Amino acid sequence: MDAERQVRTVWWEEGQEGARVCLLDQTRLPGEIVILKLQSEEEVAEAIRHLRVRGAPAIGVTAALGLALAFVRLQAGDGLTLSRDEARARLATAQALLRATRPTAVNLFWALERMQAAARKVLEEDYSFSRLVTALREEALAIAAEDAAACLQMGQFGAELIADGDVLLTHCNAGALATSGLGSALAPLYVANQQGKRLHVFVDETRPVLQGARLTAWELQRQGIPLTLITDNMAGHFMRHGGIKAVFVGADRIAANGDVANKIGTYSVAVLAQAHQIPVYVVAPCSTLDLSLPTGEAIPIEQRRSEEVTHIGGVALAPQGVPVANPAFDVTPHEYITAIVTERGVARPPFVKSLPALKSSGS
Amino acid sequence: MDAERQVRTVWWEEGQEGARVCLLDQTRLPGEIVILKLQSEEEVAEAIRHLRVRGAPAIGVTAALGLALAFVRLQAGDGLTLSRDEARARLATAQALLRATRPTAVNLFWALERMQAAARKVLEEDYSFSRLVTALREEALAIAAEDAAACLQMGQFGAELIADGDVLLTHCNAGALATSGLGSALAPLYVANQQGKRLHVFVDETRPVLQGARLTAWELQRQGIPLTLITDNMAGHFMRHGGIKAVFVGADRIAANGDVANKIGTYSVAVLAQAHQIPVYVVAPCSTLDLSLPTGEAIPIEQRRSEEVTHIGGVALAPQGVPVANPAFDVTPHEYITAIVTERGVARPPFVKSLPALKSSGS
Repeated sequence: MDAERQVRTVWWEEGQEGARVCLLDQTRLPGEIVILKLQSEEEVAEAIRHLRVRGAPAIGVTAALGLALAFVRLQAGDGLTLSRDEARARLATAQALLRATRPTAVNLFWALERMQAAARKVLEEDYSFSRLVTALREEALAIAAEDAAACLQMGQFGAELIADGDVLLTHCNAGALATSGLGSALAPLYVANQQGKRLHVFVDETRPVLQGARLTAWELQRQGIPLTLITDNMAGHFMRHGGIKAVFVGADRIAANGDVANKIGTYSVAVLAQAHQIPVYVVAPCSTLDLSLPTGEAIPIEQRRSEEVTHIGGVALAPQGVPVANPAFDVTPHEYITAIVTERGVARPPFVKSLPALKSSGS
Repeated sequence: MDAERQVRTVWWEEGQEGARVCLLDQTRLPGEIVILKLQSEEEVAEAIRHLRVRGAPAIGVTAALGLALAFVRLQAGDGLTLSRDEARARLATAQALLRATRPTAVNLFWALERMQAAARKVLEEDYSFSRLVTALREEALAIAAEDAAACLQMGQFGAELIADGDVLLTHCNAGALATSGLGSALAPLYVANQQGKRLHVFVDETRPVLQGARLTAWELQRQGIPLTLITDNMAGHFMRHGGIKAVFVGADRIAANGDVANKIGTYSVAVLAQAHQIPVYVVAPCSTLDLSLPTGEAIPIEQRRSEEVTHIGGVALAPQGVPVANPAFDVTPHEYITAIVTERGVARPPFVKSLPALKSSGS
C-alpha cells in the first residue's frame, strides 16, 4: 500500500482540547471525507452502532479507545479522581454501553475483555486512579498498534497465495477502513501489489449498506489497483466467465471448527466459488477467533433495520410497508473455506486442529 | 390473481384521438402510477429502450403494437395511403427501429417476425393499404391476446409444481408487469394462490434496476401474497435457513438445449439452488424458445450503462470514475434447470428433446 495514500480509519488524539477518539466517518464515503472527533464513550458507542466505523478489527480498536476515553477525559478535563469502587462502577457502565453496540463481531468483546483485564490488574493491586487511566490508555493504544502490525503480517502471509496476473473477487470491505492498518482481506492484495504482482479485483457492491461500492472501490482506486465494481448477483456470472482465481474475504467471528460469520452474502459467494473450483481465503486476525464456540451455529447474527434494504439516500426502492429481512451477517460453514489467513500464519483444514494451534502459538 | 387488482401493463387504444400504445411506466413504480399513451413507433422504441416496459413477453407485445401503430396512425390521422413500395420501406424502417431497442429477449424478434409475415401476405397478394393496416392491427392484437392466454396456461401447469404451504424464491420480475397477462414465473403463484394454496415468497431485490423490489414486491403486495424482500446476496442464506422449496424465474431467451438467458443473477440463484437441492423452474411462453441456437453461448447479452450500478435515484453509490460491469442478463446452463414450464406443457430434461416436441405441438 502506498503509505501516503494510506487511509486512516480510527486513531487517538490527546492535546490541549483533551483526549479524543478520531474516526473517518464511513457513512459519508465516498462522497465526503468527514473526520469525527469523539469526546465521550457515548459518542463512540453511537458511531459504532451507526456504522460510522465498521469492520470487526476496527470495531474492536474503537471500543478499546472508547473505554480508555471514558477515564482519560475525567482526569484530563476536570481533574477528577475516582475511588476504586467508583472506578469499578464506571468501568462496568462503559463496558455495557460499548458491548451493546453490535453483537456479531467478536473483536468488540475480545478488545473490551483485554481492557477489563488491564483494569483489573490495577484495581486488584496497587490502585490509584492515575495508574488506572494510564493502564487503560496504554492497553487501548497497544490493541490499535497490534492490529496494525497484524494487518501487515496477514498481508505477507496472504500475498503468497496470489500470483502475478491474478483476478480476484472480494465482498464487503475488509480493507484499511475495517482495521487500524492495511486491512484484513485486502492486506494480501496491497502487499502483492507492492511486490509488483499485477492484479484485477472484482468488487461486490455488497447490499444493503454497499461497503463494496462505497469503501472497497474507494480504497482500491486510491491505491491504483485495477478493479471492476459489480452488483452482488453478478458474482456467479464472473466466476464462470471472468477468470476469477480466488476469493478474499474478512470475518467477524470464526468458530473453533472454522465456520465463519462475515457480511451477508459471503455464504453465497463461498458456495458459488466452490461450484467453480475457486479457492476461498478468509483473512482475519486471531482476535476474530472465538474458540469458545464449537460451530458457527451459535454465532449471534445482527438483524438490522428494514430501511437499509428499502431506501438508499432517502430514495424509496420498494413499496411502502413491504416485509423485509435484513440479517447483517451470514455463516459460511468451514467446508467452503480453503484457508484462514491470520497474523500468525495460514490455517488449513481441519480447522478444528489448525486454529487452536495458531491461536496458542502467539500467546 | 384477483382480477380487480390485475395489473395492466401494455394495451392498445383507438378512439377519437387516434391510435395509441398505452403503457404503465415501470420506471416510476412503485412510487407513482403513470400511464403513457404513445403516439408513434419512435416513442414506443424509446419506452422499450429505457425500460418503461420490460420483461420478454411484454417487450414482444409492445413491439408488435408499435409496428401496428406505425401504420394505423397514418391511416387514422391524415388519411394517408402508401403504395406497396412505400409500405415496404416504412415496414423496414419501423422494424429496424424496434429491433434495435434491446438485444437479448428473443420475443422481440419473434413478435416482429410474426408482424412481418402478416404484412408479407398482404404485400405479396392483393395489396391495399387499408388491408395492410387491418392485417397489422389484427396480428398485434392477436399476439397480445395469445400472450395473455399463454400466461394462464403457464400458471395452470406451473401451479401443479407448488404445494400448500410452500416457501418459494423468485428473481427479477416475471409477473403481470412482464407480460400482457398474469405473468410467466409469477403466474403459477397466482394460480396456486387462487386454488387456496398458502405461499410465502422470498423476492430478490434484483440489482441494479431493482425489478424485484420495485415491481415483484408491488405485484405480490397488491395480490395479498405474503412475501419477504431480500437483497440478492441473501438468497444463499435463506436457501439454507428459510425453508425455500423451489425457485421460479422467467426467461428472455431459451436455447435448444435448455440453456436459459434471464436477468443477471439468475445463474447465481440457480447454482445456489442446486447446492441446496432446491428445484429451479423456468416459466416462459414458447415465444421465448430460440431453437435456432444450439446452446446459450450464442445468446447476445445486453451491456447497459454504468450509472445503473453507480447511482440510484440520482444518489451516487460509488466513487466517481470507478470501472463497472453491467451485463443485464446471464446464461444459466440447462443442467441447473429442473423444468421449463410453457403454455403447452412442462419440458423436462433432456431439453434438447422435450423443447422441440413442445414447440412443434402447438404449431
